[in-house]
Amino acid sequence: MNYGIIVRVLGNIIMLEAASMSLPLLISIIYKQKDTMAFAVCIALTGILGFAMSNLPSRSDTIKIREGVVIVSLGWFLISVFGSIPFVFSGAVDSFVDAFFETVSGFTTTGATVINNVEALPKGLLFWRSFTHWIGGMGILVFTVAFLPAMGIGSFQLYKAESPGPTADRIVPRLRDMAKILYMIYISMTVLEIILLVLGGMSLFESALYTFGSVGTGGFSTRNASVAAYDSTYIHIVISVFLILSGVNFQLYYIMFKGRIKEALKDQELRFYIGVIAISVILIALDIHFSIYKNFGKSLRDSLFQVSSIITTTGYSTANYDNWPTFSKGILFILMFIGGCAGSTAGGMKSIRILVLIKMIKREIMKIFHPRAVVPVKLGHKVLPNDLLISISTFSILYIFIFVLGTLIVSLEGIDLVSASSAVAATLGNIGIGLGLVGPAQNFSQFSEPIKFLFSFLMLIGRLEIFTVLALFSQKFWKNEF
Amino acid sequence: MNYGIIVRVLGNIIMLEAASMSLPLLISIIYKQKDTMAFAVCIALTGILGFAMSNLPSRSDTIKIREGVVIVSLGWFLISVFGSIPFVFSGAVDSFVDAFFETVSGFTTTGATVINNVEALPKGLLFWRSFTHWIGGMGILVFTVAFLPAMGIGSFQLYKAESPGPTADRIVPRLRDMAKILYMIYISMTVLEIILLVLGGMSLFESALYTFGSVGTGGFSTRNASVAAYDSTYIHIVISVFLILSGVNFQLYYIMFKGRIKEALKDQELRFYIGVIAISVILIALDIHFSIYKNFGKSLRDSLFQVSSIITTTGYSTANYDNWPTFSKGILFILMFIGGCAGSTAGGMKSIRILVLIKMIKREIMKIFHPRAVVPVKLGHKVLPNDLLISISTFSILYIFIFVLGTLIVSLEGIDLVSASSAVAATLGNIGIGLGLVGPAQNFSQFSEPIKFLFSFLMLIGRLEIFTVLALFSQKFWKNEF
Repeated sequence: MNYGIIVRVLGNIIMLEAASMSLPLLISIIYKQKDTMAFAVCIALTGILGFAMSNLPSRSDTIKIREGVVIVSLGWFLISVFGSIPFVFSGAVDSFVDAFFETVSGFTTTGATVINNVEALPKGLLFWRSFTHWIGGMGILVFTVAFLPAMGIGSFQLYKAESPGPTADRIVPRLRDMAKILYMIYISMTVLEIILLVLGGMSLFESALYTFGSVGTGGFSTRNASVAAYDSTYIHIVISVFLILSGVNFQLYYIMFKGRIKEALKDQELRFYIGVIAISVILIALDIHFSIYKNFGKSLRDSLFQVSSIITTTGYSTANYDNWPTFSKGILFILMFIGGCAGSTAGGMKSIRILVLIKMIKREIMKIFHPRAVVPVKLGHKVLPNDLLISISTFSILYIFIFVLGTLIVSLEGIDLVSASSAVAATLGNIGIGLGLVGPAQNFSQFSEPIKFLFSFLMLIGRLEIFTVLALFSQKFWKNEF
Repeated sequence: MNYGIIVRVLGNIIMLEAASMSLPLLISIIYKQKDTMAFAVCIALTGILGFAMSNLPSRSDTIKIREGVVIVSLGWFLISVFGSIPFVFSGAVDSFVDAFFETVSGFTTTGATVINNVEALPKGLLFWRSFTHWIGGMGILVFTVAFLPAMGIGSFQLYKAESPGPTADRIVPRLRDMAKILYMIYISMTVLEIILLVLGGMSLFESALYTFGSVGTGGFSTRNASVAAYDSTYIHIVISVFLILSGVNFQLYYIMFKGRIKEALKDQELRFYIGVIAISVILIALDIHFSIYKNFGKSLRDSLFQVSSIITTTGYSTANYDNWPTFSKGILFILMFIGGCAGSTAGGMKSIRILVLIKMIKREIMKIFHPRAVVPVKLGHKVLPNDLLISISTFSILYIFIFVLGTLIVSLEGIDLVSASSAVAATLGNIGIGLGLVGPAQNFSQFSEPIKFLFSFLMLIGRLEIFTVLALFSQKFWKNEF
């Protein structure tokens, strides 16, 4: 293990974090808020430490699989630790655990909060919370579109657009090229949504924050009532559309950008994702129309918003869907697992995996009658090899195992099964809201500190596609046999 | 498709059913019950139809995969249709749907009931209900230990004891040999449990009925309070032990019978199954001891009984566990999915599949660091081929998909998510009781007729390992391309 390069890269990441805190510092100064000092001190501390770390000597510049895994996992952990300092220093939260939970929730673009009254937060902190979504979203794009395929990890061969196959030797140059294009698209979407929200009458400050939470599919809000605080169909629809767009594989935007629009629109995962959204929106709209709303326009608007928010694992809300009928709640619970497309900022199991699982089931039924036949599972024109199918199904099973085990541990808090299970689904899938005690009108402040730590852990492993983090706990990982 | 042989075999099955109804008829006559006429008429009708069908001409005697699948699926369906006639004729239930549900529940060894007051049932019907468990259990043993491996269907290569590989041509002779040995073991266990229960002070009639429900892992009871009606530690423990024994792969008894006891005890699925039971019993006993019972002996006894009853997918109860803390309920909910060992009368996903899934997850973590290495998944000394791993994981995912989709449909009844989901798990896994509205103090009479039909369907596909039944709905199945 090349510890030198790990420390140096982590140092760079932390310095970048310090630099990005200058924005909330600026906001705090402009609006004359009481969190100015907290950010100034934190920037100084974080910046100095990062600078020291990044200047340590290292044997070589080579980053192989093991170093990559440590950098990504530890990196997400460390920026959450340092990112939580302003919450503690400003006195906005009571304990470090709360601050850590909140910051992990931000960087993993989860959006689960332990703060009861977000409207009382100083503007610098409000900005920082939402900004962590935006930074986290950037990180995820590079992680899933460039890092994982380059490493050949797990089932991520699926996501390769034009990569030459697993090349574990030197990933840095490839990462840089990919990152540039992705960031350009990401920033363009951000600017566009801010403009559209400002045109809808939202303040620039809030427009920016809701946009950070949208394109990063995070979900932190500036209001206790979330997006329900804005009674504007225009704003609800703008945000819904940008949520759906943010849940699309960013490689498709890249392909469209190069003029291959038809090819992008033929993408099977995209069609599956849009299909699931359409069906869910219609079913829920009908269900709540006949049972509660009696106004189909409003039913459709709230259904569209909630479906977009949950399937993209954002967690904004415009209605307390916990009061909706069980059928609608059931659909939303399922969407928490499906999630957005791979290569987007969304979490969950990802649409592409669900699609492949359905294809595997179809094939297995076929095979009853052709036990010896070789029936391929295809995605577009591509035949998926058996190894990849095993990876995808194993990942899905592991996801469900962790969900079940997590629910069991959380149930020790003495809460009901639906609250416990949806709280785990909401953190593991990086959604941020669930049902019952973690429904849209509630938050995560009610849980004990050990359980808050568990949720933080679930957010991290969910965000990093589980295997990346679990590898760190494998004995073999730390032995020198690689 | 050789329709002739299908009709003839089904005719034989129906005649056998008519013959087996002579036992409840006898009981009814001895105890002078009012259901005598119902059984007499039903035996006549069923017997004549079966005789007519079994004498139809057929082109050949060859049973291939397609014919086998139709015979098994349609066979289970038909015996449930004819077996429900006594319930209707005697006036014990209000509708055919209820009678059909009850009989499917019997033959699939589920034990879910729609009868509010079973103590009011005439003795002939009471006997018939429990006897369907016993017959169904026999059917399942042959189905999983002989039929499926011979057909090479799904993931059932796992269960082969000494079979020469998939031979789809002529399965009848092999089936007969296997069946004989299995039935001998099954009948010995039945006799032994009846004797032990009678020694514990239970009447011979009730001892027989509870034994049918135990060795068949069914769960129908002669009392509204289920086994809780007997306040005897001895009876609770005898039944617990026989439940656990009935959840073991019957091939292991065969191996033990041949003197290879050590080999049988080394079986990995057996160890996993016993391990899960031991851990669950201890965790639940501690949880209910500290929260409710304050008496560790009673906690342990009720925990042992409930764990045995649920993991073997029987559904007897000695306590209303719906009042236990969420943690204990969560464990029981998980056990509903794990189920007993393959090649037993128990349902659920089966312990062996869960064990293989865990091994697959371990391997996937290893593979992150050896992307090109071939790491085998082993069961004992046997390396499991990739095709089998894909079968097992696909089955498990399909099981979960059906569970989720079923829950969504049942939630249209307007009941809560825990009741809806556990009702689906209880029918799909052939358990018969769940949580909330289908908890041990409740039954399935509350649901609408379409939902009762859905539950009947779920019991059938769960019992027949899903793919067997789903194949019937595949277009290709009925085309002549096989």
